[in-house]
Amino acid sequence: MSTRRFAAPDDPALDQLYAEVAEADLQPLWTQEGLMPGAPPITDVAHLWKWKTLRGLAESSGSLVPIDRGGDRRVLSLSNPGLGGLPFATTTLWGAVQYLGPGEVAPAHHHTPAALRFVLEGEGVWTLVDGDPVSMSPGDLVLTPSWRWHEHHNPGDTPMLWFDGLDIPMVRALDAVFFEDGPDEMTNRAVDPVSSAEQWYAGAPGLVPVAGPGGAAAPPAHSPLLAYRWAGTDQALTAQLAATGRSDAAVRFTDPTSGRDVMPTLRCEMHRLLPGPRTPSTRRTGSSVWVTFRGAARAVVDGRAFELEAGDMLAVPSWTGFDLEAHEPTDLFRVCDTPVLEALGLYRENTLDRHQDVS
Amino acid sequence: MSTRRFAAPDDPALDQLYAEVAEADLQPLWTQEGLMPGAPPITDVAHLWKWKTLRGLAESSGSLVPIDRGGDRRVLSLSNPGLGGLPFATTTLWGAVQYLGPGEVAPAHHHTPAALRFVLEGEGVWTLVDGDPVSMSPGDLVLTPSWRWHEHHNPGDTPMLWFDGLDIPMVRALDAVFFEDGPDEMTNRAVDPVSSAEQWYAGAPGLVPVAGPGGAAAPPAHSPLLAYRWAGTDQALTAQLAATGRSDAAVRFTDPTSGRDVMPTLRCEMHRLLPGPRTPSTRRTGSSVWVTFRGAARAVVDGRAFELEAGDMLAVPSWTGFDLEAHEPTDLFRVCDTPVLEALGLYRENTLDRHQDVS
Amino acid sequence: MSTRRFAAPDDPALDQLYAEVAEADLQPLWTQEGLMPGAPPITDVAHLWKWKTLRGLAESSGSLVPIDRGGDRRVLSLSNPGLGGLPFATTTLWGAVQYLGPGEVAPAHHHTPAALRFVLEGEGVWTLVDGDPVSMSPGDLVLTPSWRWHEHHNPGDTPMLWFDGLDIPMVRALDAVFFEDGPDEMTNRAVDPVSSAEQWYAGAPGLVPVAGPGGAAAPPAHSPLLAYRWAGTDQALTAQLAATGRSDAAVRFTDPTSGRDVMPTLRCEMHRLLPGPRTPSTRRTGSSVWVTFRGAARAVVDGRAFELEAGDMLAVPSWTGFDLEAHEPTDLFRVCDTPVLEALGLYRENTLDRHQDVS
Amino acid sequence: MSTRRFAAPDDPALDQLYAEVAEADLQPLWTQEGLMPGAPPITDVAHLWKWKTLRGLAESSGSLVPIDRGGDRRVLSLSNPGLGGLPFATTTLWGAVQYLGPGEVAPAHHHTPAALRFVLEGEGVWTLVDGDPVSMSPGDLVLTPSWRWHEHHNPGDTPMLWFDGLDIPMVRALDAVFFEDGPDEMTNRAVDPVSSAEQWYAGAPGLVPVAGPGGAAAPPAHSPLLAYRWAGTDQALTAQLAATGRSDAAVRFTDPTSGRDVMPTLRCEMHRLLPGPRTPSTRRTGSSVWVTFRGAARAVVDGRAFELEAGDMLAVPSWTGFDLEAHEPTDLFRVCDTPVLEALGLYRENTLDRHQDVS
Repeated sequence: MSTRRFAAPDDPALDQLYAEVAEADLQPLWTQEGLMPGAPPITDVAHLWKWKTLRGLAESSGSLVPIDRGGDRRVLSLSNPGLGGLPFATTTLWGAVQYLGPGEVAPAHHHTPAALRFVLEGEGVWTLVDGDPVSMSPGDLVLTPSWRWHEHHNPGDTPMLWFDGLDIPMVRALDAVFFEDGPDEMTNRAVDPVSSAEQWYAGAPGLVPVAGPGGAAAPPAHSPLLAYRWAGTDQALTAQLAATGRSDAAVRFTDPTSGRDVMPTLRCEMHRLLPGPRTPSTRRTGSSVWVTFRGAARAVVDGRAFELEAGDMLAVPSWTGFDLEAHEPTDLFRVCDTPVLEALGLYRENTLDRHQDVS
Repeated sequence: MSTRRFAAPDDPALDQLYAEVAEADLQPLWTQEGLMPGAPPITDVAHLWKWKTLRGLAESSGSLVPIDRGGDRRVLSLSNPGLGGLPFATTTLWGAVQYLGPGEVAPAHHHTPAALRFVLEGEGVWTLVDGDPVSMSPGDLVLTPSWRWHEHHNPGDTPMLWFDGLDIPMVRALDAVFFEDGPDEMTNRAVDPVSSAEQWYAGAPGLVPVAGPGGAAAPPAHSPLLAYRWAGTDQALTAQLAATGRSDAAVRFTDPTSGRDVMPTLRCEMHRLLPGPRTPSTRRTGSSVWVTFRGAARAVVDGRAFELEAGDMLAVPSWTGFDLEAHEPTDLFRVCDTPVLEALGLYRENTLDRHQDVS
Repeated sequence: MSTRRFAAPDDPALDQLYAEVAEADLQPLWTQEGLMPGAPPITDVAHLWKWKTLRGLAESSGSLVPIDRGGDRRVLSLSNPGLGGLPFATTTLWGAVQYLGPGEVAPAHHHTPAALRFVLEGEGVWTLVDGDPVSMSPGDLVLTPSWRWHEHHNPGDTPMLWFDGLDIPMVRALDAVFFEDGPDEMTNRAVDPVSSAEQWYAGAPGLVPVAGPGGAAAPPAHSPLLAYRWAGTDQALTAQLAATGRSDAAVRFTDPTSGRDVMPTLRCEMHRLLPGPRTPSTRRTGSSVWVTFRGAARAVVDGRAFELEAGDMLAVPSWTGFDLEAHEPTDLFRVCDTPVLEALGLYRENTLDRHQDVS
Repeated sequence: MSTRRFAAPDDPALDQLYAEVAEADLQPLWTQEGLMPGAPPITDVAHLWKWKTLRGLAESSGSLVPIDRGGDRRVLSLSNPGLGGLPFATTTLWGAVQYLGPGEVAPAHHHTPAALRFVLEGEGVWTLVDGDPVSMSPGDLVLTPSWRWHEHHNPGDTPMLWFDGLDIPMVRALDAVFFEDGPDEMTNRAVDPVSSAEQWYAGAPGLVPVAGPGGAAAPPAHSPLLAYRWAGTDQALTAQLAATGRSDAAVRFTDPTSGRDVMPTLRCEMHRLLPGPRTPSTRRTGSSVWVTFRGAARAVVDGRAFELEAGDMLAVPSWTGFDLEAHEPTDLFRVCDTPVLEALGLYRENTLDRHQDVS
């Protein structure tokens, strides 16, 4: 369907037909190029944003740009060079670096796109989710699920920088974006060491309250646990390496009450690689953003090599070959849209027979 | 977020920052307009295609344009005037009229976008799904689910016209389109009165084989029943009207082995309205295409009235007010993307307090 | 564990211990025989009840015994000879023949054990389920699920006889039996040809109401369709034989909105066998009652042969070898407890390498 | 149905009928008493076994009775006084105290009944589950799910005592008990501090391996995590009390990959009560065994008071009123059959308007 087209003869009747078809807000299928090519017509490209650049520009923004209602957040979004100027990291994912300076407040709002924060630098910031104060530290994953009120504040004296991952492009493609401002003033400046969500759900793996905070209400579509702490993630990866004796380990962040992904549209994983063999080259439908937490590694995407260091962010488009090789112990956070492709019966995965060549 | 923006002062340092941000393939969030407005920024519009026009142009295409490899199908796609020339009925749905003349064959291919056919005119055409011959008659719904081989042939002497509904825009937005040609020659020209799928699954409601044709294999993500016959649909609507004593009835087409939608991305319904009260005005996230099978009715979409007659096709965008009123007994087929919005936690529905005004 | 026991020496200290253990309402594990033998310690036996006997005794009961409050029903229950006088067909299933004479009424009650009726003889009887009149004819399967009010009345002039299948032994073993009498007088003597449940759910396979009679309420744990008509069952079996070209076919009765078994504790199937090869000998955990609807066949259970004719009822215990061979076209209704064993992770099935010998 | 019976007149024809009915292995429904009474005909009774007695008799058994093949385990089972000498704690549950002396080995076997161990006293014992060594300490919950090989050994120099909870009566009532001996010799005497199952699944709440030990195999019906450590349970209860400010907290032990109960037939919970108000009096279908881990409290069951101290075990039958009141901080382990009643649509719960009177 993608290669051969009906070659229209030079026929006035056909010209007339095409004119009438266009006039009637119709289009002939047989003259369309590239509607359904053999493999996905990917336009976003593999791209690496270096932490050195991201950090510097975020810091400059911190000096020059206040946080005001309207913008609400001091965020620099990853803008994939293949997407013609759209502020999206991949076709389906928003990725960004957010900077919150000492004493600053990013005011409350909520929106149907789901968001997650993976903390890269700083201490002593709180994200309030529906008023529940969730502290943030490097390596922590913090969720602000669809339509939950959230605001950030930094009562300390150092800035914090984190990675923002959202499903904005996908929710836009479904015409389902809603947004509302919250109150301008924070109602809760408490800096509790443990969020209420963690008090309920972070006791130990497999332990859930007999009667949860929501009572008999239907459980939400997302995880009720809103923070996954680095100490726990680190411990899980360490234990998995011990269990397998391998040089790579990976955990998925899930809803502890159901085992499902933390949010219906986004999968989150943490990968640890020790120096060792290159991972198999694999292609998958759906796109990812990888965020380097620590270490140094090389990623290869469709034959192009990218060197990853702490803080670096890498966009990996759908159906591109991908593998990793660590130069030193390396921890990588990954966010991807796989739950969507799985739910819709569109997920495919293909491990290549041999490693892709590196150009 | 949608209304107020950070008003950049005339500051050379800021100009410098913006230049560097752009150079680094980043974008400031705070200067972006319309990223997350209060309600979905719908661009597709409510639009009606009249059967008289559709039928005429399809027939002209039948005279002037052969069916060849490459185009594969003689299809005129609904091109929503709000989508800037894209061949899509709505943001997420493909809708089209397909014309297959006497003696013609539309050759085998398969693709990851899921397709359905709702037959409007003609008799004696067969769709082969993985080689299983499925006959087609007016009012029948025929499925060709994701990645199943399908071809159509018309051994009779009258043309057939049907509505095609697909999820192409959605699968493209997820970078998950795959396509392959099948063999050029049909391998099965049998014109069995009953498809094998119907022999297995169309006995009576609630009866399923103890050991189905797939044996112990995991069931597919779509309905194993590939044809829903008009006689059954008509009977179900008639019975429902009798049960309720109301002037409207509606049935959903489902997988008889699971009760789920026929395919993971598309919901199909048939609605019957008798002359009577206007239905409540309702808004929903996600879009629909309505195809009039018989009768005459008025639809109102965000205050605009559209008169529907047999064969007419109406695109209804996300989050638009919608209601119906029948002038005579009317049957309407509806395809929509609701299963996707539900699976992703993005479905919303809102019945208005009173009927929308008609402009 | 089943064969070797701790051989207690002749030791007064041990005697003293055993006395104290017994006094304390305890028991030593090591002296118990048969607690967990290698395979289930089946006590119920394969047993056949002949229709000639069942019908005759039911008819005599009809002359001699009225239907009164208290007994509520004129029922002769299958009493498995292996169960020491309990009125149960197998360890987990109740089976019985029920007789309702001309003009008789079996008054309303409800109970947590689930019930089904498979009609063997007669015409013109109605079962009211929560007041919805469901007509009964030979070959029909009629459900009266857990805790739904039901009553039967026979406004005609011929008696009706049907098979009753219930899960009474299982619900008793779980200490979950509840029962209540309904009003003594019938409130609805309508003899509608089609029940309301069938108007909603019996249109065609895969068609379900967009908005069902229950509105937004959570669906019940059982099928909302309360009658599965013989005509549909017959058609499904005929079509399946045509699809496969085999000499046996079998359908499961399911909830048309979910594909699950009709009720959480009971699976219902209809099997058709043409004269042909003996079916494979298979053992399964869980028990069944088979009811012959028409034809003549031989069943072998753990090597014992049973000749089945119309109306005959056969109890098949757990983990017994079982196969069938038809002398003429034969239809068999089967009720079993498999959904329970599957839900609890206890279902096992084992097809023997060769047919069991017949003693 | 439970109170009024058909009063048989003195009629020779009826006598004759009854004789023939009995001869035919049938029973009249209308002469049966108590088949379906208004509420469950509970025969097991609320009963308390005191730790002082249990411990003493277990220790005496330790001196007098070796562990041999055949008995396999040194177990004293709770024998409910209402069950006529059966070795069952309630109608559906097996409860027992198990004693393993220094240097002893309880050899490998597996069985379809599911088992759990809640440790009460001792240190330094390992349970091998399919060869994976799981250490045991007071307050730990250790699972040996259906049909998994398990053996216990005590390489230390102090005895261990634990509570055994199994579903033996239920699996017997379903005729689904299977049992096999394993090898007589232990193949793995390793005393690893952390089981392989814990290395995979005990990192932190919500973290699961991307690729688990089972690869792509279907997950088992039970939790892959086989030990829930007291430290984690204690922490979860402490956090929940902090979150609510109440005087009671309760957690359920679940499969961390699905949120379902640890095993399909058994629910496990840990309850903490501080001195404070009496809990509401509640009735539930299904039975429980409560095991006191520490503290002192009073339970009331259908008006009878039971004083609970550390180690005490209390059987609570189906549909009995139940409440608790702590004299000091008290931790109680509970095992019950609720997942079965829920799966089968038979679960009912009823909180009484006021506290039951205590006789």
